Amino acid sequence: MSSQLGQLFRISTFGESHGGGVGVVIDGCPPLIPLSEADLQIELDRRRPGQSEITTPRNEADQCEILSGTFEGKTLGSPIAVLVRNKDHRPEAYSEMSEKYRPSHADYTYDAKFGTRNWQGGGRSSARETIGRVAAAAVAKKVIKHFYPDLEALAWVKSIQNIEASIDPLTVTAEVIESNVVRTGDPNTAGKMIDRIKEIRSEGNSIGGIIEGVIRGCPPGLGEPVFDRLEADLAKAMLSIPATKGFEVGSGFSGTTLTGADHNDHFYMEGEKVRTHTNNSGGVQGGISNGEPILFRVAFKPTATIMSAQPTVSKNREDTELKGRGRHDACVLPRAVPIVEAMTNLILCDHLLRHRALCER
Amino acid sequence: MSSQLGQLFRISTFGESHGGGVGVVIDGCPPLIPLSEADLQIELDRRRPGQSEITTPRNEADQCEILSGTFEGKTLGSPIAVLVRNKDHRPEAYSEMSEKYRPSHADYTYDAKFGTRNWQGGGRSSARETIGRVAAAAVAKKVIKHFYPDLEALAWVKSIQNIEASIDPLTVTAEVIESNVVRTGDPNTAGKMIDRIKEIRSEGNSIGGIIEGVIRGCPPGLGEPVFDRLEADLAKAMLSIPATKGFEVGSGFSGTTLTGADHNDHFYMEGEKVRTHTNNSGGVQGGISNGEPILFRVAFKPTATIMSAQPTVSKNREDTELKGRGRHDACVLPRAVPIVEAMTNLILCDHLLRHRALCER
Amino acid sequence: MSSQLGQLFRISTFGESHGGGVGVVIDGCPPLIPLSEADLQIELDRRRPGQSEITTPRNEADQCEILSGTFEGKTLGSPIAVLVRNKDHRPEAYSEMSEKYRPSHADYTYDAKFGTRNWQGGGRSSARETIGRVAAAAVAKKVIKHFYPDLEALAWVKSIQNIEASIDPLTVTAEVIESNVVRTGDPNTAGKMIDRIKEIRSEGNSIGGIIEGVIRGCPPGLGEPVFDRLEADLAKAMLSIPATKGFEVGSGFSGTTLTGADHNDHFYMEGEKVRTHTNNSGGVQGGISNGEPILFRVAFKPTATIMSAQPTVSKNREDTELKGRGRHDACVLPRAVPIVEAMTNLILCDHLLRHRALCER
Amino acid sequence: MSSQLGQLFRISTFGESHGGGVGVVIDGCPPLIPLSEADLQIELDRRRPGQSEITTPRNEADQCEILSGTFEGKTLGSPIAVLVRNKDHRPEAYSEMSEKYRPSHADYTYDAKFGTRNWQGGGRSSARETIGRVAAAAVAKKVIKHFYPDLEALAWVKSIQNIEASIDPLTVTAEVIESNVVRTGDPNTAGKMIDRIKEIRSEGNSIGGIIEGVIRGCPPGLGEPVFDRLEADLAKAMLSIPATKGFEVGSGFSGTTLTGADHNDHFYMEGEKVRTHTNNSGGVQGGISNGEPILFRVAFKPTATIMSAQPTVSKNREDTELKGRGRHDACVLPRAVPIVEAMTNLILCDHLLRHRALCER
Repeated sequence: MSSQLGQLFRISTFGESHGGGVGVVIDGCPPLIPLSEADLQIELDRRRPGQSEITTPRNEADQCEILSGTFEGKTLGSPIAVLVRNKDHRPEAYSEMSEKYRPSHADYTYDAKFGTRNWQGGGRSSARETIGRVAAAAVAKKVIKHFYPDLEALAWVKSIQNIEASIDPLTVTAEVIESNVVRTGDPNTAGKMIDRIKEIRSEGNSIGGIIEGVIRGCPPGLGEPVFDRLEADLAKAMLSIPATKGFEVGSGFSGTTLTGADHNDHFYMEGEKVRTHTNNSGGVQGGISNGEPILFRVAFKPTATIMSAQPTVSKNREDTELKGRGRHDACVLPRAVPIVEAMTNLILCDHLLRHRALCER
Repeated sequence: MSSQLGQLFRISTFGESHGGGVGVVIDGCPPLIPLSEADLQIELDRRRPGQSEITTPRNEADQCEILSGTFEGKTLGSPIAVLVRNKDHRPEAYSEMSEKYRPSHADYTYDAKFGTRNWQGGGRSSARETIGRVAAAAVAKKVIKHFYPDLEALAWVKSIQNIEASIDPLTVTAEVIESNVVRTGDPNTAGKMIDRIKEIRSEGNSIGGIIEGVIRGCPPGLGEPVFDRLEADLAKAMLSIPATKGFEVGSGFSGTTLTGADHNDHFYMEGEKVRTHTNNSGGVQGGISNGEPILFRVAFKPTATIMSAQPTVSKNREDTELKGRGRHDACVLPRAVPIVEAMTNLILCDHLLRHRALCER
Repeated sequence: MSSQLGQLFRISTFGESHGGGVGVVIDGCPPLIPLSEADLQIELDRRRPGQSEITTPRNEADQCEILSGTFEGKTLGSPIAVLVRNKDHRPEAYSEMSEKYRPSHADYTYDAKFGTRNWQGGGRSSARETIGRVAAAAVAKKVIKHFYPDLEALAWVKSIQNIEASIDPLTVTAEVIESNVVRTGDPNTAGKMIDRIKEIRSEGNSIGGIIEGVIRGCPPGLGEPVFDRLEADLAKAMLSIPATKGFEVGSGFSGTTLTGADHNDHFYMEGEKVRTHTNNSGGVQGGISNGEPILFRVAFKPTATIMSAQPTVSKNREDTELKGRGRHDACVLPRAVPIVEAMTNLILCDHLLRHRALCER
Repeated sequence: MSSQLGQLFRISTFGESHGGGVGVVIDGCPPLIPLSEADLQIELDRRRPGQSEITTPRNEADQCEILSGTFEGKTLGSPIAVLVRNKDHRPEAYSEMSEKYRPSHADYTYDAKFGTRNWQGGGRSSARETIGRVAAAAVAKKVIKHFYPDLEALAWVKSIQNIEASIDPLTVTAEVIESNVVRTGDPNTAGKMIDRIKEIRSEGNSIGGIIEGVIRGCPPGLGEPVFDRLEADLAKAMLSIPATKGFEVGSGFSGTTLTGADHNDHFYMEGEKVRTHTNNSGGVQGGISNGEPILFRVAFKPTATIMSAQPTVSKNREDTELKGRGRHDACVLPRAVPIVEAMTNLILCDHLLRHRALCER
C-alpha cells in the first residue's frame, strides 16, 4: 500500500516511466461532482515536460483518459481510473544506467530494496510517477470546490538557489504565478531566476530552491490530531515528492529563535470571526486549521542528473564513472509548483471528507 | 483512526491529561520479543515532568502497567496495551481556560472542530498524550534490536534559541547526550543552554530550538516509495509532535543553494559495501535508506504558555485577556528529545516489518 | 492490525483471559454523543458469565472503566479507552493445558502461528476477548441512535441443536428475548431449550445452534460495494466471533433451490417509500441496504470443552489424552446473542459514518 | 476505499460495464515473481462470457494488458496495473433500465446511495467488475506458488438448484472440474446439471446453487485473530461476490445439530505432523489454519434477470412493470467457480504476507 495516499479520498498511483503508462485510481470520490478529462488535462499540462524554454525539451503530451467512475459528466461515487500512456520511449538512452548507479538517484536503493528495477528512464522513481498524483488532485480540487467554494491552494517558486522572490501570500494570484515560466509570484525576480536556470543548464549543472504554498479560505476545524495533524499530513505529502529535503509551516525553522512572547499569535474578534493578529502558527494550531491562511515552504535539492562525469559504482560492485545523458530539467521547481499544489489539494480533500464524517454538525 | 500510526506495527494512543489515564495499544508486534515494564519505564522516565531543574516542577511518576500482550517476559503476538494513570490532577488550575482560549494553543481549534474539549490541562492536546507514543516506541526499539542489532536511533538538542551546539552525528553517544539535563550532545554548550532556559523562565517567557537526530546502522532498503518514503514518514511523525514547525533531512533547506555538482553524493566501494563520499542525501535516496547515517532536524517553536497577560478571545466570542498559570516547561526541547527518538523508532519498526513482508529474500 | 475492526469507527481490542485486563480503544467516535459507563455496563452484563442457571458458574462482574474520550457525560471525539480488569484468575486450573492441546480449541494453532501462547484460560482466544467488542458496540449503538433514531438491531436464539424456535423478525422485541435466560424470541420453546442445555451439561457434553438477527429501520443506502458490501462486512464480523461456522443473509442456503421467478423481490410503492413484496434479498441488494429489514443467521458449533477424556497431542509432539476441566458453558448461544448484536452495531456504525462522509447530501 | 481489498497484497478494482474499461491496481506484490499477461489471461478466459453453451452468448474476449509493475518477465515490487477494455457496448439494450429498477438487482440501491448510477449494463454492479479481481488473483496465485509451492485452492459446483454432486474435496483435481462446462467435480452429475440449466434458460427463468471450495497444502499458522481470522476474511471475500447469500466453513450450519463429543476433531501425530482424525473445523481453529484441508461452501441465489415481466417501480416513484432483456446467464455458477477461486487466492496471498511480516521465524 506504499503507492496509496489518503484515508477516505484514497489514491493508488501506478506506472513506470517506460511501460504501458502511468495513472491513478481514486477510491472514495463523492458522487455527483462535475468532472471531465479537460479538468485533469489543464493540471497535467502545467506539469508536463517541454512546456517552456526552461524545462526539459522532452516533449510528452501526457494526454489523459478517464477509464471509469464518471457518467454523463459527473462522478458516480465509484473508483475513478485515469490513464496516461507513455509515448516518448528511449530506453537506449538509459542503457548505461542498467549497469551503473547514478549518484544521488534512486538506482542503487531500488536495487538494494527490490533486487530489481526498471532502469529505463528511472522506472518507478521517475518524475512521471507524479502524473497520477496531479490527475487525482485535479479531481480533489473539484471536490473541494463543491464543499468549500472559497478554499484556494496556491504554490509558487520562492527561491531559486540564492535568488529570493518577494511575494505576499495573502494576495498573490494564480494568474501572476502562471504569467512567468518559472512560476514565481514575483514578476520582478522571474527574469533573474530564468537567466540563472539557463546559465546553469548551459554549464551542464543544476540548481534547486524553495517552493512556498498557501491555503486561503480554509475554515477552522480541518486536521485530525494526534497523528494526522493537518501540517503532519502536509509534511508527509511534500516529502513524498521526488527531490524534496525539507518542510516547514508558519514560522518554521526561523521561529526557533524567537521567544514565546514574540511568537504567540494573539486572538481577537473580527466581527463574528476569531482571528489572530500575527500568524506564526501558519494557520494550524494543535494540528487543526484555525481559519488563518496556512503557510508552508518545501525545500528542493538541485537536480541529481548533471552532464559531467561523476565517480560511482556499478551493479557488479566496482568503482566506475558515469556521465549524465538525456534531456533533463536543470531546475525542477517550475514544474514542481503544480505538484506541490496537487499534494496540498489531495491532503485537503481527504481531510474535509474525514471532518465531514465525524465532526460536521 | 487519527490517533493511530503505522501500517504493520500499528499503535493507537489514548488519553487526556485529566481523566483515567493515558496509554497505547500496539497491534502488530511480533511474538517472542523479550519485554518488561522496565523497558518502557526507562524511556518514560526520560520524558516525564519534574526530572530536572530545567523542566516543569510538576512531579508525575508516570508509572506504566502492561495490561496485555506479554507472557513470561516475552511478547505474545497479540495486542500490547499499556496504561499510565493520571495522578497530578489540578483541574481548578485550568478553570479560567474553560472560558478563554490560550494564544497559540489548541483550545480554540479543538472547540472549532469538535464543538467540545476537555479544558482541564489541555485535554487530548496535552503533552501527556506523548506518553503512549514513548511507551510504544520502547517496544518498537526492542523489535528493532531483535531484527537489526546494529541499528541505533539517537536525538539531541542541536540549538536552543540562537545557541547552537557542535556535535558529530557519526560519533555522539547516548551517554554524552544524557550526561547533561538539556540533552545536547555537546557538553561544552550544555551549560550555556541551561542558563538561557533558566533565565527565560525567570522572565516568565519561553524559548524553542532545534533537535537533531541520526539513525546509524540502518541497512540499505528501508522505505516504501512512492508515498511512504522513509523521510516522508519521518516528516509526518515529527510534525505530529506538539510544538513542531519544521523538518529537514540531509542537506535540507540549506542544500537548496548548492548546485548539483556540489550536492551529489558520489558512490564508492568500501570492501563489499556501497558507500557515498558525502551525505547530502541524509541517508535516503528515492525514499529508501542507502546504508549511510540518516540525518534530520526538527524545529520546535517556543512554548506557548508564558506568564504574562496576553490578549485573546473567550468562548463567548468576546475580546479578553489571559495570563498563563500553572507549571510549564519554559523550553520543551530537553523532554522532547526522547519523543523525537520515540517517533523515529516507531517509523523504523513499521518499515522494517513492511520490508520483511514484501522484499526480504 | 488483526485486532482492529472498522474503517472510520475503528476499534482496537486487547487482552488475554489472564493478565491485567481486557478492553478496547475506539478511534473515530463522533463528539458530543452522550455516554456513560452505565451504557456499557448494561451490555457487558448481558455477556458476562454467571448470569443465569444455564451459563458457566464462573462469576465475573466485568466492571468497566472508561479511561478517556469523554467529558461531562459526552464523547470528546478523541479515542475512548475502556478497561475491564480480570478478576477470577485460576491459572492452576489450566496447567495441564500448558502441555496438551485441547481438541477443536485454538491451542495448537496459536502455538503453530506465534511460537507461544498464554495457556492460562485460553489467552487471547478466550471468549473474554469479546468484552472489548461488546463495550465498543455499546458506544456504536449510541452513535447510531444519534444519527438514525429508528434503527434497531436485535438478535435471538433461533435454534439449539435441533430445537427450533418460531419467531417473527418483524415484530419480536428486546423485552421478549430478554424475558428468558436462553434468549430466544419464542417463549414457548424457551423451556425446551433450557432443558436441553441442562441435560447436555449434566452429561459433560455440549451443543450448538443458530442465532438469528434483524436490523429494522435501516434507511436505504448503507453498504460500500464492491468489497465492503453491508452483508460482506456482517459476514466477516460474525465469522470473527469464536465458535461460528456459517453466515447467511436473506434466503441464504435454502434460497439456492428456488428459481429466479420465485426468488426475485418485486418493488412497489408504499406512499413515498420504495418497498418489496417479498424479502429474499434480506434487506440488501448489490451490497447496499434497500430499506427492508436486514435478516441474517449465524451458525455456532457445540462448545469445544467437554468433560470427557479425548485423544490429543502434546506440545512435545506425542499422542496423549486430555479431559476437560473448569467451568464452561455447555452451550454458548445465550451469551452469544449480545455479541452478535454487538458485531451488528459495530458494522452499522462504521457504515453510517462512511456513508455520511461520501454520499450524504 | 470500498473497492479495495487486502492489508498487504492490496487490490483496487475499477470500472463499469460500459465505459473505458475495467481493471485493477495491485499494491504490495513482492518483487521478482515471474509474471506475464498469459498468466492472467488463462484465468480471465475461465470467467469470460460466451465460453460455453450454458453461459451468456455475449462474446467478450476480455483481453488484458499489464500497464505497469513488471519488467523483463518479473514483478518489480511496484504497483501492477491491469486493464481490460470494454468492447461489447450496447447501451441501447438497457435504455428501459434508465427509468425502471430491475427487481433484486442493485439499480434501486445504487440510486438510493449515490443519487446516480451508470444504468448501462449494470454499471459498477455488473459482473464485469469481477474481472479486476480475477486478474489480481492470478498474480496472487503466482505469489503463493513462490512461497508455498504445495498450496492449491480449488472450487467447483456442488449443487445446481436441487441437483447435488458427489465430490471428494481431498482428491478432486482441476482437470476433472474443467472437464465439464458446468465446472462440477462430479462428471456423473455434470450432464444433469447442464440439462437443468438449458431447461430453465429455455423457460426464461433462472437458477442458483452452491459452490464448494478447498484449500489443500496450507501450512498451519495462517490467519490473524481476532478479527482477521482466516475464515472471517474468506467469508467477507465470498459475500462480496455478486449474487452470494451465504458462507459456511467445515461443519457449517449442519454442525449446529451435533454435540461437542461428536463434533470435536481429535489430534494425533502423523510422523512429525499434527493431524486431526475428523475435520469438522474445516481446517481452521481459532481463526488460524491447522494444516488440514480448508473446506467451505458459498450459496448463490438464482440470477435476478429473467425473461418474464415483473412488477417494479420507476425512478419517478411510480408502480410499473419490467421485462428482462439482453443476454444473461440463466445460472451464474459455472462462471462463478473461477471467481470463488480468485477470492480464495487473494485472501491467502494477503495472509501469507501478513504472517511473513510478523510471525515467520
